[in-house]
Amino acid sequence: IAQKNTHAWSGRFSEPVSELVKKYTASVTFDHRLAEFDIEGSLAHAAMLNKSGVLADADLAAIRDGMAAIIADIRAGNFDWSVDLEDVHMNVERRLTDKIGDAGKRLHTGRSRNDQVATDIRLWLRAQIDAIVGFIAELQTSLLDLAEQHSATVMPGFTHLQVAQPVTFGHHLLAYVEMLSRDAERMLDCRKRVNRLPLGAAALAGTTFPIDRHYTAQLLGFDDVCHNSLDAVSDRDFAIEFTAAASLVMVHLSRLSEELILWMSPRVGFIDIADRFCTGSSIMPQKKNPDVPELVRGKSGRVVGHLIALITLMKAQPLAYNKDNQEDKEPLFDTADTLIDTLRIYADMMRGITVKPEAMRAAVLQGFATATDLADYLVKKGVPFRDSHEVVALAVRYAEGQGVDLADLSLEKLREFSTLIEQDVYGVLTPEGSLAQRDHVGGTAPNQVRAQIARHRARLA
Amino acid sequence: IAQKNTHAWSGRFSEPVSELVKKYTASVTFDHRLAEFDIEGSLAHAAMLNKSGVLADADLAAIRDGMAAIIADIRAGNFDWSVDLEDVHMNVERRLTDKIGDAGKRLHTGRSRNDQVATDIRLWLRAQIDAIVGFIAELQTSLLDLAEQHSATVMPGFTHLQVAQPVTFGHHLLAYVEMLSRDAERMLDCRKRVNRLPLGAAALAGTTFPIDRHYTAQLLGFDDVCHNSLDAVSDRDFAIEFTAAASLVMVHLSRLSEELILWMSPRVGFIDIADRFCTGSSIMPQKKNPDVPELVRGKSGRVVGHLIALITLMKAQPLAYNKDNQEDKEPLFDTADTLIDTLRIYADMMRGITVKPEAMRAAVLQGFATATDLADYLVKKGVPFRDSHEVVALAVRYAEGQGVDLADLSLEKLREFSTLIEQDVYGVLTPEGSLAQRDHVGGTAPNQVRAQIARHRARLA
Amino acid sequence: IAQKNTHAWSGRFSEPVSELVKKYTASVTFDHRLAEFDIEGSLAHAAMLNKSGVLADADLAAIRDGMAAIIADIRAGNFDWSVDLEDVHMNVERRLTDKIGDAGKRLHTGRSRNDQVATDIRLWLRAQIDAIVGFIAELQTSLLDLAEQHSATVMPGFTHLQVAQPVTFGHHLLAYVEMLSRDAERMLDCRKRVNRLPLGAAALAGTTFPIDRHYTAQLLGFDDVCHNSLDAVSDRDFAIEFTAAASLVMVHLSRLSEELILWMSPRVGFIDIADRFCTGSSIMPQKKNPDVPELVRGKSGRVVGHLIALITLMKAQPLAYNKDNQEDKEPLFDTADTLIDTLRIYADMMRGITVKPEAMRAAVLQGFATATDLADYLVKKGVPFRDSHEVVALAVRYAEGQGVDLADLSLEKLREFSTLIEQDVYGVLTPEGSLAQRDHVGGTAPNQVRAQIARHRARLA
Amino acid sequence: IAQKNTHAWSGRFSEPVSELVKKYTASVTFDHRLAEFDIEGSLAHAAMLNKSGVLADADLAAIRDGMAAIIADIRAGNFDWSVDLEDVHMNVERRLTDKIGDAGKRLHTGRSRNDQVATDIRLWLRAQIDAIVGFIAELQTSLLDLAEQHSATVMPGFTHLQVAQPVTFGHHLLAYVEMLSRDAERMLDCRKRVNRLPLGAAALAGTTFPIDRHYTAQLLGFDDVCHNSLDAVSDRDFAIEFTAAASLVMVHLSRLSEELILWMSPRVGFIDIADRFCTGSSIMPQKKNPDVPELVRGKSGRVVGHLIALITLMKAQPLAYNKDNQEDKEPLFDTADTLIDTLRIYADMMRGITVKPEAMRAAVLQGFATATDLADYLVKKGVPFRDSHEVVALAVRYAEGQGVDLADLSLEKLREFSTLIEQDVYGVLTPEGSLAQRDHVGGTAPNQVRAQIARHRARLA
Repeated sequence: IAQKNTHAWSGRFSEPVSELVKKYTASVTFDHRLAEFDIEGSLAHAAMLNKSGVLADADLAAIRDGMAAIIADIRAGNFDWSVDLEDVHMNVERRLTDKIGDAGKRLHTGRSRNDQVATDIRLWLRAQIDAIVGFIAELQTSLLDLAEQHSATVMPGFTHLQVAQPVTFGHHLLAYVEMLSRDAERMLDCRKRVNRLPLGAAALAGTTFPIDRHYTAQLLGFDDVCHNSLDAVSDRDFAIEFTAAASLVMVHLSRLSEELILWMSPRVGFIDIADRFCTGSSIMPQKKNPDVPELVRGKSGRVVGHLIALITLMKAQPLAYNKDNQEDKEPLFDTADTLIDTLRIYADMMRGITVKPEAMRAAVLQGFATATDLADYLVKKGVPFRDSHEVVALAVRYAEGQGVDLADLSLEKLREFSTLIEQDVYGVLTPEGSLAQRDHVGGTAPNQVRAQIARHRARLA
Repeated sequence: IAQKNTHAWSGRFSEPVSELVKKYTASVTFDHRLAEFDIEGSLAHAAMLNKSGVLADADLAAIRDGMAAIIADIRAGNFDWSVDLEDVHMNVERRLTDKIGDAGKRLHTGRSRNDQVATDIRLWLRAQIDAIVGFIAELQTSLLDLAEQHSATVMPGFTHLQVAQPVTFGHHLLAYVEMLSRDAERMLDCRKRVNRLPLGAAALAGTTFPIDRHYTAQLLGFDDVCHNSLDAVSDRDFAIEFTAAASLVMVHLSRLSEELILWMSPRVGFIDIADRFCTGSSIMPQKKNPDVPELVRGKSGRVVGHLIALITLMKAQPLAYNKDNQEDKEPLFDTADTLIDTLRIYADMMRGITVKPEAMRAAVLQGFATATDLADYLVKKGVPFRDSHEVVALAVRYAEGQGVDLADLSLEKLREFSTLIEQDVYGVLTPEGSLAQRDHVGGTAPNQVRAQIARHRARLA
Repeated sequence: IAQKNTHAWSGRFSEPVSELVKKYTASVTFDHRLAEFDIEGSLAHAAMLNKSGVLADADLAAIRDGMAAIIADIRAGNFDWSVDLEDVHMNVERRLTDKIGDAGKRLHTGRSRNDQVATDIRLWLRAQIDAIVGFIAELQTSLLDLAEQHSATVMPGFTHLQVAQPVTFGHHLLAYVEMLSRDAERMLDCRKRVNRLPLGAAALAGTTFPIDRHYTAQLLGFDDVCHNSLDAVSDRDFAIEFTAAASLVMVHLSRLSEELILWMSPRVGFIDIADRFCTGSSIMPQKKNPDVPELVRGKSGRVVGHLIALITLMKAQPLAYNKDNQEDKEPLFDTADTLIDTLRIYADMMRGITVKPEAMRAAVLQGFATATDLADYLVKKGVPFRDSHEVVALAVRYAEGQGVDLADLSLEKLREFSTLIEQDVYGVLTPEGSLAQRDHVGGTAPNQVRAQIARHRARLA
Repeated sequence: IAQKNTHAWSGRFSEPVSELVKKYTASVTFDHRLAEFDIEGSLAHAAMLNKSGVLADADLAAIRDGMAAIIADIRAGNFDWSVDLEDVHMNVERRLTDKIGDAGKRLHTGRSRNDQVATDIRLWLRAQIDAIVGFIAELQTSLLDLAEQHSATVMPGFTHLQVAQPVTFGHHLLAYVEMLSRDAERMLDCRKRVNRLPLGAAALAGTTFPIDRHYTAQLLGFDDVCHNSLDAVSDRDFAIEFTAAASLVMVHLSRLSEELILWMSPRVGFIDIADRFCTGSSIMPQKKNPDVPELVRGKSGRVVGHLIALITLMKAQPLAYNKDNQEDKEPLFDTADTLIDTLRIYADMMRGITVKPEAMRAAVLQGFATATDLADYLVKKGVPFRDSHEVVALAVRYAEGQGVDLADLSLEKLREFSTLIEQDVYGVLTPEGSLAQRDHVGGTAPNQVRAQIARHRARLA
């Protein structure tokens, strides 16, 4: 039979698809990026068919040669993706058949585009996850380097954007290293569920050929096969789980961005970001704007939007494959691209941060940051914490009225609030004294900060 | 001063932007589609500056000539958009200056990219809304045509996907005409808030030049000016409101898609969709799949995702402009594109629907669809509705046990449930009898359906 | 027939609903708040039935008496809402029947819970919208009062959280007044689509009784009737549109909250919020936290979440009513409650703001806020804007290197950048000079600010 | 000092919190459900303080006695939660102090509500996850039981809601068992990140007391401690991750619900749901509605809404604790409640499904379900798959035109499409023949279905 029809399925139809529909339904404009993963999957499928006696040696050899040539064509930019052929799969298969004839027409034996595309996306996503985990580690290293330089640099710790207690800048940065560690864990947990082989599910029910799915899985590096064919072709959990994990990375980087923007605002002035990460204004000649963190903050919405798009997509779909699923790719692609770009630029940008320790220290002295230390001091002298807290609250109220810090009050004045206060109180009222005392796992004492840095370095090594 | 710097703002900076950052922050790859709107805004701005005495006649003439040439370049595909120049605005301005020299450098007097881009988007969005309102009307006409053919075609009305009462297929389609009418209303309400001029807000505070914003507004067809400069540059409400309205259109078309898919499923078999809107399977030779409605259903998630992206973007941004806002464009562009493509394809597809009245009528007879009519019959004989409902429930339970319809029960049997039942009951138990009695505004009686069609046709004329 | 069954529909069923199911499916735990709207709708329905000759005068009188007694019971707290009776409608109807007998059983003639609940929600939502529009006006008044006191108070206008140009604090507050004006517009646009009567649609197809829907609409103050019965019972657009509009209000208040929190942070110190809107810390005795704006910022997520819940709910539902729709109420109720509480507390809190003009003025002097004024100055001397911008950028770079403001540079030094600069330049370099020159509609010049305040006051009067 | 102040922090404040603010900011109305977890955490904290020498033996003993009494009060309903005391923590602490005096005031030593509430939520969520994993297993068992009965029951497998290939009903149900297995995996992966101790982070920086966090972790069954104090108090990743995982469970159950509703629709008629899971109509006496699956479908939106609420909440929050975080609880509580209720009711409902194998079998015969089998048949005779597919497509087109199935065509007619077709073709054209041949891991052959059931049973045992 002459290959006169463009589509894989046109023999049954009485009229061609309209141009508007063709454009609306084709995916090749975006799914051609899966091409090499598609070919990888096809080669493993062909090898398995051959091992199972379904495909002759000569056909396998022809397929391998043809695919090698196609990869070369693609890499050389000599592959015109045709919308008439709908998607990456048919484009590649048609080209293969043009090159090698009947062997090409035998490749689709025992599979369907439903399991083929599911395989392609999983191969692609696995590669993205591996890249992301690497970029997370790079950003963590970048943060650890900066944290190490500032393991003892005093800055105000904020709650409610009010000065709370002194912390070190290194300690503050380590909070983000922790978040990113969880992000990497989540990516790897997600990878387990990505790395299962749907191929062999065919359209939805499996196939009548004697296939060996474990062999295909082994060839492609999958940990396991999907155990139910209906689920295999309709499952997009992994896309949602990945996008949810990516959303959390973006939320973390959005939080850090919020802080960088704030810290670089002139009234705060804790840091400066290198010029190469900033842009100016078309009208205001003095402007230097933290564009990168602002865009990161903005792009968090983009990724969250993709998460919602994917969940909405899957909600209430009956089994098995429906065309709705084609809408999974663009959000997924854009999520991975955005995340990778953002992680890379962030790792670079954190190396371009200039820290201004004097501004940080000045800020610590502006908010009674050691009031809790005074309360703890009294507790250690026997006052129940709740009473001690009340005593110090009154002292703070008095000092604020006077426009001075607690450390500026005379011992006599302090003793009006509690006669248990003695000369040694001034030691606990300095930022450095406050820091040094928070010396337990997770606390902000500089040696704890250094211990955490060492722990993370060992983990990443 | 020689124009040696690429950017609008580089004099202040000590190092160039990194390549990665340039790619991450540039918007020209997607905002170049605003080019003609950008030029339209610039020409109005220049005319206003001239009228206000800020720009010389010769400069205005040069700008007009230069812009005409640029539009010609763009349309001819002779405009290379440069990422080094960040965005559509700087690309156009630089090209203008290359063509006409100093007059080009004067164009940006009294404005900033902040108010410029806000103006561009509003001009673009206004045009999209006008197009969308037109496409909604086209789809409504398509639905009205089909509804008119089937103003008396009996089909089961469902609630909970259980047969409820007979309706006509035309009546069912009119429900979507109503939804689309609200959609058009919402688009026009949104348009009121889109159609206000931000230009003149400059960076955020207005400008020191004696501008005449009402004149610019008049030239550009805006209804009013934005009355606060900080708000003017940071407001993206209109993007969110538009995307929310677009989401509702997509929800409506997603609901209709759900029904088309269901109606075309062989067990239901109420309709067929023309081959040109369907595709087949790469493995299953018999398949004809309703791809278009499935994609529409899937794409509803895409638009809802954009809505969330935009809301997340704006949430908790301090005034005034922040770079986050650059992330408004891609979701907005894709929302309008998706909506317009979907409306167009839908209007076309509804003309390719084949209705199968026999299948619809058979389905009406399968679910005691006229039980309410029997209850109403009894009420008209004096039984309180709540009691009448109970009587009929018992009759249905009996008939279901026998595997027959209510109309199949003998008068004798029916009278076991209520002695008020007489021979005339059989008239109310037919689908046609049931339809005809629902003869009030909004009811499913065929003449009411025709009246609604006429009302909509008059409105659209 | 004895009223032995609990439910409105139990005659057809062979086993009772399980307890778990009863709890899962009942709505009375939350929909009982609709009770008075439900009764209002029932009374109008009964009056219409009477006018149409379907309900006897005596029955109408009994229903009116019964309902009056029920309202009294509810207000007195003497109404036990029964989960066995599912929802507010059946609870009220059963109580009515207990009180007045057969007349109560006649009330449900010609309607269904499907159109009844749609009517109840619309009545309730209309009342919420009216309240919200009032509270928006109150908050605007509160903002206008504060803006009026500070129509000339200099503060830095920020873009990218970098100092951009001087604005007045009054001008900044007016940006929020503008946003709230759009919010009120959107609420009123939404109200048009809420205020249409679904009653008469009955289950989905209309009714066989000779009803007069326009009369019912008139009694209940609806502007129009819903023109398609299937749409009438399944439409929840208005809930989505309302929640989208509410999300925008929350986004606006979230933005203002972000600013209040920032402004109250000690390094910024532009404002203080009265103690009665703040709380402290259980551990840090010195803390005074801006809890209310923080919660508002957090609650914006809550409302956006409800928006997504509602859109997801409606996506791809086939016509007509499905039980899914019962899930519309809790998000809708919580949205209105959250919005009303937030608007009220915000109007109150803005009256408790203490402004610190010195801190604001000091901040203006920290970021070359008048650099654009210098650029405009040169333009007025004939330099093309793009060149003038470049000149000033270099001057800023020099001044920043020296750690001084532009106004601190000597005339000699300034003339090194452009010989067009003369002694009068120092007039444009002051914040007040900068403000005064932005004297056009929407600009920050104090008299423009006062004009806008007057415009808003007139509008609200 | 007399305990005259209501709040934990009021000594610093000059005016009491307004009533409106108190109501707006208090959390005790919803967080009191954490009470027993709060006490569990407090007891472990006290034991640790005692072991570390910070709290005397007598104080520890008093605290234990006091807490035991408080638990008893709570369980007996004798605990009035006071909004004046803000939250569950202060309510419990105040009650403790009322009971045992100074020892109670010592409990808060070395901790803050910031780390306390984080600990409470984690303890609570860990318990919910454990419950959910159990309920997932129960539902899986319920599905396996039904699948086992129907491991060989023929039904049409659908793609695009068109008949695709025969599958067994058991196989179809197993797809959901797979989904639920991934859900359980995700819950357990999430649990790893929930099960880390934040206590000891105090407000944000750690504490000056010599605490032993690993000991507290051990007492409370945590796997590890949070390694950074700033992160410990501000991390809500676990809430988002849990809600994302819960959203996926709901998406799965929403998909199954969509199918149950469809299958119970009279035109499809594959199943019936027991009366006790259905409700009727107030107007239509014949109705039996699948309320439970419809509500589940609707409630998926509710949970997705909570996910968005939580992500929006955290996006761009600066470190460390902000009051925004208080908004984490209600969405989290409602997510767990909804999920648990839904899983329980679903496990029960699946046991109330009546299957109608004849209707399923009839449907298989309505859509050329074995066309792929014919294509495979030809491939096995040497035809390349792509050509074989085309041959069968033409045969289907012919048969459809004749209104018959492929199996109804004579051998002579079939051979017009390919002379390779012989008498044995009729074996592959029956549903049972089709099923039996899909005999590989994940395929729909009955013995494969039974093997999967066995695998799952072993896993759950």
